[in-house]
Amino acid sequence: MESIKVGMLGLGTVGGGVLKIMQEHQEKISAITGRRLEITKIAVRHVAAHPEVAELGIELTDDVNAVLNDPDIQIVVEVMGGVDPTKDYIIQALKNGKHVVTANKDLIAQRGSELVKIAQANHSDLFYEASVAGGIPILRTIVNSFAADQIEDVKGIVNGTTNYILTQMVAKGMTYEAALKSAQELGFAESDPTNDVKGIDAAYKMIILTQFAYGTNVKLSDLSVEGIDKIDAVDIQQAKSMGYTVKLVGESAEINDHLAVSVAPVLVPNDHPLATIQNENNAVLVKGAAVGTTMFYGPGAGKMPTANSVVSDIIATTKNIVLGTSGNTFNGYRQKAALAKPSEIFSSYYIAVKMPDIPGQLLKLTQILTEAQTSVSQVVQTETDGKEARVVAITHNISLAQLHTIIDQIDQEASIELKASYKVLEAQK
Amino acid sequence: MESIKVGMLGLGTVGGGVLKIMQEHQEKISAITGRRLEITKIAVRHVAAHPEVAELGIELTDDVNAVLNDPDIQIVVEVMGGVDPTKDYIIQALKNGKHVVTANKDLIAQRGSELVKIAQANHSDLFYEASVAGGIPILRTIVNSFAADQIEDVKGIVNGTTNYILTQMVAKGMTYEAALKSAQELGFAESDPTNDVKGIDAAYKMIILTQFAYGTNVKLSDLSVEGIDKIDAVDIQQAKSMGYTVKLVGESAEINDHLAVSVAPVLVPNDHPLATIQNENNAVLVKGAAVGTTMFYGPGAGKMPTANSVVSDIIATTKNIVLGTSGNTFNGYRQKAALAKPSEIFSSYYIAVKMPDIPGQLLKLTQILTEAQTSVSQVVQTETDGKEARVVAITHNISLAQLHTIIDQIDQEASIELKASYKVLEAQK
Repeated sequence: MESIKVGMLGLGTVGGGVLKIMQEHQEKISAITGRRLEITKIAVRHVAAHPEVAELGIELTDDVNAVLNDPDIQIVVEVMGGVDPTKDYIIQALKNGKHVVTANKDLIAQRGSELVKIAQANHSDLFYEASVAGGIPILRTIVNSFAADQIEDVKGIVNGTTNYILTQMVAKGMTYEAALKSAQELGFAESDPTNDVKGIDAAYKMIILTQFAYGTNVKLSDLSVEGIDKIDAVDIQQAKSMGYTVKLVGESAEINDHLAVSVAPVLVPNDHPLATIQNENNAVLVKGAAVGTTMFYGPGAGKMPTANSVVSDIIATTKNIVLGTSGNTFNGYRQKAALAKPSEIFSSYYIAVKMPDIPGQLLKLTQILTEAQTSVSQVVQTETDGKEARVVAITHNISLAQLHTIIDQIDQEASIELKASYKVLEAQK
Repeated sequence: MESIKVGMLGLGTVGGGVLKIMQEHQEKISAITGRRLEITKIAVRHVAAHPEVAELGIELTDDVNAVLNDPDIQIVVEVMGGVDPTKDYIIQALKNGKHVVTANKDLIAQRGSELVKIAQANHSDLFYEASVAGGIPILRTIVNSFAADQIEDVKGIVNGTTNYILTQMVAKGMTYEAALKSAQELGFAESDPTNDVKGIDAAYKMIILTQFAYGTNVKLSDLSVEGIDKIDAVDIQQAKSMGYTVKLVGESAEINDHLAVSVAPVLVPNDHPLATIQNENNAVLVKGAAVGTTMFYGPGAGKMPTANSVVSDIIATTKNIVLGTSGNTFNGYRQKAALAKPSEIFSSYYIAVKMPDIPGQLLKLTQILTEAQTSVSQVVQTETDGKEARVVAITHNISLAQLHTIIDQIDQEASIELKASYKVLEAQK
């Protein structure tokens, strides 16, 4: 059987998982691809730190060029992370005619379209299934199974760290700070959790999902992004008592040929499939005009799930090499789209305010809502210390422009303080 | 652009959907495949019944041979259903060198391996994504994304009719008979619902899923199949009060290289993703050694979801024609496996019995459980009329062999009547 040589950049958690799967399932992979896949060379920072790999007969090097310029290597697997200089390494590999598999979400979200063009020009494959929702094969599913359908909405829980933190806050009534600390201690959150808790990581994934769903490139600045770091435990418990679970939801919706892409805390009805996604798991809902709503659920990160997605990409690349069909883009679908205006984006909202507990205050809030032509399904006074009351309203469907009007009016009312405003998801029938 | 001609057998609900998608998304399909796909001929029972199709310039015929033997047709789409004579038509198409796409679950489950061999011998594609869980792209996902992983368990809700009936029973406290009648009136159940309510339809889907997950062919007689037609509304409500939702779950598990494939009513914990699958929707959970648990959820049937899966297969077949890679089997993975013995299959069980409400009876039940070395997490007396009591026990993990012993012992005890025994699913973390 012919062999195909694979080089790797990086040998951290995911890289170790890739190596393990490639070794343990070599026979099955050969049966599927008709080729023996051999990892021959791995570029690492400290060669001496991996004696067990050297024993496998794999060459370790601290020079990435030794991998990038090796004429025998056909597939380069990038699992070192980071945008610079990793981008240049991938470009060099592609220009050297190698196929590239990467799990690098930040890089693909920020420089993906540039890399895709270089891959195409060099008739090389560039695959990155692992970059979104680790173990969930969502990108290839969109490419293969929604090809003839028109996707109308993609939404989901695409960041495991924040979902872990929110799960703890809901289940144990913890504050955000306490839940973050516990997540850090257990290794579910990094010591600098900014990218996760501010919603940036989820936003990068929504950029990639938007590309696959609508064939449209959007930038981070095109998205409305809100993290979980401002969430008050009071609102989590209040939502719970009303039958909702608070989740950080990314959504990319097509509205009258315009796109609205956002990441924000959202109230999810308890009987909605997204409400049952616990801890570090991810889930993506895709709504197609023909298919209706489908959901894909699984581990969003972790060594082996992510490594499995990388190996699936290596297998797909190998099949293309065998078939002589390399260099077709992962997702060939391209179109332009403008962003939706706030007047086009509709939802129901949860609005929490604090106000003096004196007659006339509730009337003021009602007037603000009425002036914005907003009707509500419920208004609840949730707590009062005799002086100040907390009031929560859930609106019917209103536009984002109406919500902005309401928030502006509340800001102008000295005696009413806005504590939170979150989207409320519709029930899934 | 070159065109590829497609012939269809049947023009019922799904066929109409396929025609609609192919017409409305012609441009997008051409962009993806590089070919213009043209439906040129459709075999129907009554030509005169489809004047609107004739107007599209598509030839209608009541002679299937006009499609099967048309040298210009490269892809035959079978959406007429039934096992005989449909099987012979598909064989004829394959022998004539045509690629075949079918949504015919009964046929694939019963005669799939035979048809796959004929397709391979003739270098033809045979695709049938729509045969399992209509709109959910589960088969292709297993092929592409679990290629290098070892699947350990596949379980799911794969029959929409029974899930609709159970959803009504849980939500509205309806009896099985009332829920079935309502499902029939709304078109969610057929006038002869036997295949659905007895679990046969779900069993066929589990046969196909087992083939894809483990590369193993099993027959209907290899499965343990129990339907929903004997479920007592009392047990549904009892389960509900204990925090469970009753679902008809198909499961195919690999245990020590042995397979256990079953369809049966199961108690699902309310915070488990399967518990939120409402009405006619389907969901399949796949557990891989590397990936962990993933779930795929969506419409299990219906005109457009099923048609979309058929069109995805047509697109996949067309890509293969263009690439010259036809005739690789949909799932090339093959291995032999024996069936697991009852002593190898472990689960927790819900056991409901009726017994005289007199002292000593509960002791008898406890003795039976103890003799079978079964400990229980709870025992509840749920109702009594003063003479007869209903008692429900939930066991810890026991083997199926132990369950059989318990049931045998209860059968031998004249004063205790077994009312129900259902598997209890573990919570999903």
